[in-house]
Amino acid sequence: MTVPLQPIGEVRSPYQSREDCPANGWGSDTRSEIRLDPAFRPGLDGLNVGARVHVLWWFDEADREVICQPDEEGADPIGVFAMRSPERPNPIALSLCRIEASTDEGIEVTGLDAVDGSPVLDIKSAVNYDQTIL
Amino acid sequence: MTVPLQPIGEVRSPYQSREDCPANGWGSDTRSEIRLDPAFRPGLDGLNVGARVHVLWWFDEADREVICQPDEEGADPIGVFAMRSPERPNPIALSLCRIEASTDEGIEVTGLDAVDGSPVLDIKSAVNYDQTIL
Repeated sequence: MTVPLQPIGEVRSPYQSREDCPANGWGSDTRSEIRLDPAFRPGLDGLNVGARVHVLWWFDEADREVICQPDEEGADPIGVFAMRSPERPNPIALSLCRIEASTDEGIEVTGLDAVDGSPVLDIKSAVNYDQTIL
Repeated sequence: MTVPLQPIGEVRSPYQSREDCPANGWGSDTRSEIRLDPAFRPGLDGLNVGARVHVLWWFDEADREVICQPDEEGADPIGVFAMRSPERPNPIALSLCRIEASTDEGIEVTGLDAVDGSPVLDIKSAVNYDQTIL
């Protein structure tokens, strides 16, 4: 089975390489823009400044063969599903973001730790009916 | 651009159709099993009972052409990116889950609202370094 995905847009960020990206995007005040293809822009209706969203994007450069990695102390290996590392079988990245502004082509957000040009797959409201982050 | 994804396993749940699934999986005490293909099971190393994970899975039956939906009161349309509806251009579902047990083929979780047999794409630790849910 192969699942075909079509990017809905792409990231414009100040990060030009993986080494530039913060280890944790959430908590950073760096702004990135998510530029959507025109056909998808009506999908943003109802999202306002301050909203928390999950952004799903594609790790272009991931090694998809990695299943375990040594942990940082060099002790027992840790499975990729216990981590948020880009190296994983299906490298769909997930970033919790805050919408900071609307732009002509999409939205400006904080919390995103994606390299400039990364394909964006989805944006979802991150908030449950009771206002908890999912 | 088309991104090829390979499911890592599938869901075994008591939900036989979309109508059976709860509107919010998080908060339900219904258990589902995530059965991983053998090659991917070492990727679970380091995930223990009680851990919070994001499970990414594939909405088999989604309508991928929907960009806006009328809201429940029939007033202004709401964009798909402001919602968590299955109907969206790239129907990757995201569920915050709690690991309840290890099984021979994977893990048992609460919080998942997937129809039995749904393909699983990824599992990620849902917790930031400071223990907040991302």
